[in-house]
Amino acid sequence: MQLSSTLLENAVAEFSKLPGIGKKTALRLVLHLLKTEPEKVEQFGRAITKMRNEIQFCDRCFNVSDGQLCSICSNHTRKAKTICVVETIRDVIAIENTQQYNGTYHILGGTISPLDGIGPDKLNIESLLHRVTEEETEEIIFALNPTIQGDTTIYYIQKKLQHLPLQVTTIARGIAFGGELEYADELTLGRSLQNRMPVENYVGKKT
Amino acid sequence: MQLSSTLLENAVAEFSKLPGIGKKTALRLVLHLLKTEPEKVEQFGRAITKMRNEIQFCDRCFNVSDGQLCSICSNHTRKAKTICVVETIRDVIAIENTQQYNGTYHILGGTISPLDGIGPDKLNIESLLHRVTEEETEEIIFALNPTIQGDTTIYYIQKKLQHLPLQVTTIARGIAFGGELEYADELTLGRSLQNRMPVENYVGKKT
Repeated sequence: MQLSSTLLENAVAEFSKLPGIGKKTALRLVLHLLKTEPEKVEQFGRAITKMRNEIQFCDRCFNVSDGQLCSICSNHTRKAKTICVVETIRDVIAIENTQQYNGTYHILGGTISPLDGIGPDKLNIESLLHRVTEEETEEIIFALNPTIQGDTTIYYIQKKLQHLPLQVTTIARGIAFGGELEYADELTLGRSLQNRMPVENYVGKKT
Repeated sequence: MQLSSTLLENAVAEFSKLPGIGKKTALRLVLHLLKTEPEKVEQFGRAITKMRNEIQFCDRCFNVSDGQLCSICSNHTRKAKTICVVETIRDVIAIENTQQYNGTYHILGGTISPLDGIGPDKLNIESLLHRVTEEETEEIIFALNPTIQGDTTIYYIQKKLQHLPLQVTTIARGIAFGGELEYADELTLGRSLQNRMPVENYVGKKT
């Protein structure tokens, strides 16, 4: 794409570096900013660089944070003795959006995947084990993606925890709401039959 | 969406102000920037604010420009006596991408649309008329969108130009390459029959 201004070209090139943003979308966004008041554009640029330079990761759960402890860990109305173990920050946001969980989190930063060279030492596992003993945790809830890597990670951590007096659970796998039995894969449908639950538990209570 | 950091929240809010970017996409982009090196993010922010603050509009054709004249107007290998009249900067880019045009442009900034309160005085028409007499233009090519507003604008400008010894043309309307006759609307198909052209002209020459 040939543009009549290198300033414009640079801005388009920068936007196209973002994932899922091609040259055409980048141009559309830049032309939009061109029509926006300069102060607003300045504010946009500042919000992004400030975010990148000043953001921290929570010392306790590795969530993004404005200070040493994230807003979830420093919230005393949340049950500190329940830890939900997730892969990424994105998963925390997804669970928070359900408004069904009132404990704390621990972000592993991925799952054990020897083929990709990710061993337990590259994840925040040691700090989790430390936390569990330190904080007298009562329950660990695994909310990892249902992949082989996820299952391996659960198995690995669970082994390390088995000598401790705490409950270890994993989020339920089953037929999603709005899903149709007919189109569910056999593994999911089979598991959801094995792990059937009493109807009175069907409407869940907040954890 | 509840996030554990206001810095993150601000960045997401800023991204979601862009057209076609919702909260989820904004979050995806921000989390990507979070993994990017701080210098790269700084560079991103700077490219955008610099673009907005320093970009100029060409004194002659109103295209975006790094200086008083845009790179097209200041390019002496281009035919200055041919002016292609378009609505927006986006149209200039589209035509430049065809690599079939070697003249200059004039960006109107829209089309005459009384219902939207856009009269001829709100568009760069006066400057076009001035340019045509000043620069001894030989040909005006209208490349406006095929709408009633576009046609009205062509008609209005053409009236103002009719006393001058210059050729006034408009880009061809017809069946698009890759289009199918069967699905073309009647107006387009009818016009393309009326304006049929000798087969020897079918492979066009560069203007």
